[in-house]
Amino acid sequence: MLGEAGKKIHTGRSRNDQIIAAIRLYSRSFLLDFQRDSLNLAQALLDFAGENTSMPMPGRTHMQLAMPSSVGLWAGAFIEEILDDLSLIAAVYDLNNMSPLGSAASYGVALPIDRQQVAEALGFRKVQNNVLYVNNSRGKIEAVILDAVEKVMLTLSKIAQDIILFSMPEFGYFTLPDDICRGSSIMPQKKNPDILELVRARAASVSAMCLQIKSIIRALPSGYNADFQETKPAFIRGVDTALSCVRVMGLTVSKLQVNEEKLIAGFLPEIFATDRVVELVGRGIPFRDAYRQVAAELHKIEDKDPYEAIRQKVHAGATGNLGLEMSAGRVREFGARLQEESKSVEQKISLLAGSGVKLFNL
Amino acid sequence: MLGEAGKKIHTGRSRNDQIIAAIRLYSRSFLLDFQRDSLNLAQALLDFAGENTSMPMPGRTHMQLAMPSSVGLWAGAFIEEILDDLSLIAAVYDLNNMSPLGSAASYGVALPIDRQQVAEALGFRKVQNNVLYVNNSRGKIEAVILDAVEKVMLTLSKIAQDIILFSMPEFGYFTLPDDICRGSSIMPQKKNPDILELVRARAASVSAMCLQIKSIIRALPSGYNADFQETKPAFIRGVDTALSCVRVMGLTVSKLQVNEEKLIAGFLPEIFATDRVVELVGRGIPFRDAYRQVAAELHKIEDKDPYEAIRQKVHAGATGNLGLEMSAGRVREFGARLQEESKSVEQKISLLAGSGVKLFNL
Amino acid sequence: MLGEAGKKIHTGRSRNDQIIAAIRLYSRSFLLDFQRDSLNLAQALLDFAGENTSMPMPGRTHMQLAMPSSVGLWAGAFIEEILDDLSLIAAVYDLNNMSPLGSAASYGVALPIDRQQVAEALGFRKVQNNVLYVNNSRGKIEAVILDAVEKVMLTLSKIAQDIILFSMPEFGYFTLPDDICRGSSIMPQKKNPDILELVRARAASVSAMCLQIKSIIRALPSGYNADFQETKPAFIRGVDTALSCVRVMGLTVSKLQVNEEKLIAGFLPEIFATDRVVELVGRGIPFRDAYRQVAAELHKIEDKDPYEAIRQKVHAGATGNLGLEMSAGRVREFGARLQEESKSVEQKISLLAGSGVKLFNL
Amino acid sequence: MLGEAGKKIHTGRSRNDQIIAAIRLYSRSFLLDFQRDSLNLAQALLDFAGENTSMPMPGRTHMQLAMPSSVGLWAGAFIEEILDDLSLIAAVYDLNNMSPLGSAASYGVALPIDRQQVAEALGFRKVQNNVLYVNNSRGKIEAVILDAVEKVMLTLSKIAQDIILFSMPEFGYFTLPDDICRGSSIMPQKKNPDILELVRARAASVSAMCLQIKSIIRALPSGYNADFQETKPAFIRGVDTALSCVRVMGLTVSKLQVNEEKLIAGFLPEIFATDRVVELVGRGIPFRDAYRQVAAELHKIEDKDPYEAIRQKVHAGATGNLGLEMSAGRVREFGARLQEESKSVEQKISLLAGSGVKLFNL
Repeated sequence: MLGEAGKKIHTGRSRNDQIIAAIRLYSRSFLLDFQRDSLNLAQALLDFAGENTSMPMPGRTHMQLAMPSSVGLWAGAFIEEILDDLSLIAAVYDLNNMSPLGSAASYGVALPIDRQQVAEALGFRKVQNNVLYVNNSRGKIEAVILDAVEKVMLTLSKIAQDIILFSMPEFGYFTLPDDICRGSSIMPQKKNPDILELVRARAASVSAMCLQIKSIIRALPSGYNADFQETKPAFIRGVDTALSCVRVMGLTVSKLQVNEEKLIAGFLPEIFATDRVVELVGRGIPFRDAYRQVAAELHKIEDKDPYEAIRQKVHAGATGNLGLEMSAGRVREFGARLQEESKSVEQKISLLAGSGVKLFNL
Repeated sequence: MLGEAGKKIHTGRSRNDQIIAAIRLYSRSFLLDFQRDSLNLAQALLDFAGENTSMPMPGRTHMQLAMPSSVGLWAGAFIEEILDDLSLIAAVYDLNNMSPLGSAASYGVALPIDRQQVAEALGFRKVQNNVLYVNNSRGKIEAVILDAVEKVMLTLSKIAQDIILFSMPEFGYFTLPDDICRGSSIMPQKKNPDILELVRARAASVSAMCLQIKSIIRALPSGYNADFQETKPAFIRGVDTALSCVRVMGLTVSKLQVNEEKLIAGFLPEIFATDRVVELVGRGIPFRDAYRQVAAELHKIEDKDPYEAIRQKVHAGATGNLGLEMSAGRVREFGARLQEESKSVEQKISLLAGSGVKLFNL
Repeated sequence: MLGEAGKKIHTGRSRNDQIIAAIRLYSRSFLLDFQRDSLNLAQALLDFAGENTSMPMPGRTHMQLAMPSSVGLWAGAFIEEILDDLSLIAAVYDLNNMSPLGSAASYGVALPIDRQQVAEALGFRKVQNNVLYVNNSRGKIEAVILDAVEKVMLTLSKIAQDIILFSMPEFGYFTLPDDICRGSSIMPQKKNPDILELVRARAASVSAMCLQIKSIIRALPSGYNADFQETKPAFIRGVDTALSCVRVMGLTVSKLQVNEEKLIAGFLPEIFATDRVVELVGRGIPFRDAYRQVAAELHKIEDKDPYEAIRQKVHAGATGNLGLEMSAGRVREFGARLQEESKSVEQKISLLAGSGVKLFNL
Repeated sequence: MLGEAGKKIHTGRSRNDQIIAAIRLYSRSFLLDFQRDSLNLAQALLDFAGENTSMPMPGRTHMQLAMPSSVGLWAGAFIEEILDDLSLIAAVYDLNNMSPLGSAASYGVALPIDRQQVAEALGFRKVQNNVLYVNNSRGKIEAVILDAVEKVMLTLSKIAQDIILFSMPEFGYFTLPDDICRGSSIMPQKKNPDILELVRARAASVSAMCLQIKSIIRALPSGYNADFQETKPAFIRGVDTALSCVRVMGLTVSKLQVNEEKLIAGFLPEIFATDRVVELVGRGIPFRDAYRQVAAELHKIEDKDPYEAIRQKVHAGATGNLGLEMSAGRVREFGARLQEESKSVEQKISLLAGSGVKLFNL
């Protein structure tokens, strides 16, 4: 598999550094795919937010009605969260992209091997220098990767929970596409959001797998220990789970239906109370006085126009000024860098292997 | 506390974004200190490695004797690990350094507030745009920070475990400074490595605190939920614990005594077996044959010179070519960037508060 | 504090077994209180279920409408869950109630001490025999206790989540007592279920504290290690948290208001689909055929009587046959055993200390 | 598979209660096997302790030399720990052994099914009454089981760590049987304790799987949620892992070789310091004075006889009075109860299935 370069490292290897190299290459391939799929989800959210920029949606705190919000604000929040998650993934990508080859079983070899050349041939950013550190980092780099991936899973768990809630008949804000729902064996009327519930559950699973890896390696003495073996299934399972979840969420968002009537029906008068307070403040009444006045006369809040309520908040990041174009720019920029790196890696591997190697299916 | 800028945001605030801002400023202050103290530890390890570059040390895998190693290689491994840990902390620092102010209770305010100006006054890198995202990121940014900090704790747990092991009477490689040891209430002879055992235990504690935060926020619906409150004690406890551990480890390393006689005594003949195999390979014998030959005649391995054994491995990152100057360069560079950022933040805060504000004691 | 018995163990002690003894006594006191408060919650649920035995409530799966249920069934589920949780606590109580005294620093003493007498004086069930096991079990028994307590927290987290959901304006099934709600700093209309959100979050916290203890002690070598110290704050924090949560939940349930009108309004026709299938089955139509027939004509399901729907399920444990009297019997029986044990422990301690010692406030 | 009884529950079932029933039967079968294998390990330890009752072994605290101990005390500690672990497993066995059948999809059925009869036919201890509780307990009972199993894993992790340490060449107390060791791909001299390192690592894995299940179910609303599905692989993996670990440890202990010479060589004079203090106390010198006197003259401690030192500690649970016969009695008693239960369960299942059903291989 390693071709000409492979011969050069022939006697300067051990099972240890070969396995570490294999995991690094696997992880790099995964991270390239995972970033691309996360960007696809960000793009699906961008499209969705763009179509629903001025679609009112009851805003909540404590799950109770709070203030007027919009579907655009809701989706926009997740776009920015994913982009921030991706900034961590990018840092982690670099950390993973170091060549362990030549470190042998933690203590190098008494041969004048050229570790730099092997690193370059495999498209690694640099040689991971200290040979003991290479072996000490087994499991650690995997933990670093999966912990970053877990942050995306946390984002997905919130999207899933929101959609599950808002597609309950009592809300009906969203309708789920049929192909991510399942029926019941005894209840003929059911259309259950199974896939989203699984995403929610799998966010917990990925966290547990992160923990598993870190618990295994914590306080192990220096040098290779067989405990490292036990980190591999947890890592593979973790990245597989995350990849399928981010893909299914992209699909879900791209097919999510918005029910305007139900959203508007959710605007009970009390949701305008804070806007009313701010209105009074605008007329010169001190905030605390305005608050008390509105609190005392909650029943008097006249029904206001939800569309108007979300248009009138125009500062940065508010419903009337979402800044979606800023997010779109970040998605484009990140995507361009990602494509460049993918191409460069592919070229290196093709050079060695004769053709491209796909580790993860489309 | 926020001075002139404070007046501008007077009615565009809520408890929510104020608390988030306070946590961000606290975290920034912590991260500056934590990076400095981690660099101090890296420097202590550099000094230690420099003094012991050619000091032989039995290298282990599976905790069993493996191949010749050196005290320099051992310490050098941790320097590079900490520097890599710090590259994550730096990414996390940027993510934290966004201004949440003006997002109010997740849905902004119907007033033309200038979020950018407030952000600049407080030295934030930028405004965290989407107002719902700001509130959704409560606990999340804390988790991101503590997860990065946990990586340093994993490094510390390994250093601690190694030193505890190697200062047992059966090894005696290292002697611990008296001021990090304690006696026993009933055993007059005892000098126990309590502090290192606590570092080892606290690495597990910090991991648990990371998990706590992430478990609390996972699958919470959008918008503020009171659950967020419960993330604060775990976060504060986590960063405090980590800061004290990295400091105490710096102290330990700077006072660690190396016992050459004991180290050399640890070189039982079998430790040279692999070197012998490679020697035979050098003479043209295929690796597997050489391996079998040495395995069959283990008792015949003549005692070799440990000093020579570690000198003769000269490829990148091996005992005869540690690359400490490379690590020293990275420490200097990171330190310079850190000092610049610290100064810049301090200036902003002094401008607002009249004087510098110290959140963490020296 | 240990009186006459204390003198006997004077030179047969060490800090180690004294601290373990103190933790065991603390834990025993906690477990007695925790069991009592959990029973109080079970009793509050029993009263609540008794008052609402035939109060219809939409039953859900996947958070979607499923089949007719009742408030009595809902509350009854938690009573049985708590009683099962308590059966574990009882087993754990016995495990904790062993005397560690006389084990010294893991290796006993060369004096003919009478460990049995000390154990009896302190009301311990028996001597924990092997002196090394005593010290190896530091942290372990705490983990066993907190893990059992965590099971009650899991039960509380579900009660909390249900009540939070069902008190949202879109459901309105329950109204929360004012004294467990809080307002908002900027939204005058808000009445937020803060306390229940905190219970939900604290269930995650207690799990993290369990994990912390177990992570600290895992794979520690035999004998005392200073790591054990680090288990204490996690344990204390865990039991304190759990005790306050079970108490606040007892208060919440005892004051929870049920809104019949809202509950009945939740019975959309589709909820009767499965009952309709079973009705057809009763007329001799095979289940799958009946299922398909109802599925094809969901819109035709006539509105049925929710009260009748829950009355007609009469097999064991169904809405028409809750078996509350069985649960009431278990509560009484458990309560009686608990009171007897409490009294017996109190007598022993009073004998030693001159008066009763209260570790946890009422 | 369920025979005559199966026909009776034909229309009173759903996927939900059938899956729960399958998991309960699987768990019961596992628990019977796991208890038997844990008892086998306890028996292997008993045999080992019996053979080494008066074999001296340096006792440690903080991994440093502490006081004289024995191989018998060391092994005896684990016997008692496993027996206490098993007392929890027994409580958990009862909790699992309840019949969920007839609860359908959480809300029962409008048919007069006889849940008691089905429960008896399958050998369940009783009907799990409340039909909503049955479904709410999905994942919960699995968590309860795996948490109890994890306690045994914690015990195994300590045994593994001790044996790994004490078979290092620097100690050499124990020699591992060849069939649980592996060699190295490049180091011909290596005999690594891979299997014990894997047991150590897998203790962390099982803890992570416990956490995974509990994280998934925490704060889920009442009734079936698809999240439950995700608990199954974690549970199956957890119990499989634990079963293989307890078996391999039984094998290891039964073949462990003890090296008397090395054990005696470990008795450096300082290990007798505490015994010397107690001796002085016996002559009337106050403890603190004796402690200071010995501390001041550590170098003067004459070499004592390790055999004598462990013989002279005769109080309950000390080296001279291990109480192994007490443990042997508990093993026999537990084994008898277990065999009776196994036979009774097997009879029930044979009656239904025509023959016994083995879920776990021998």
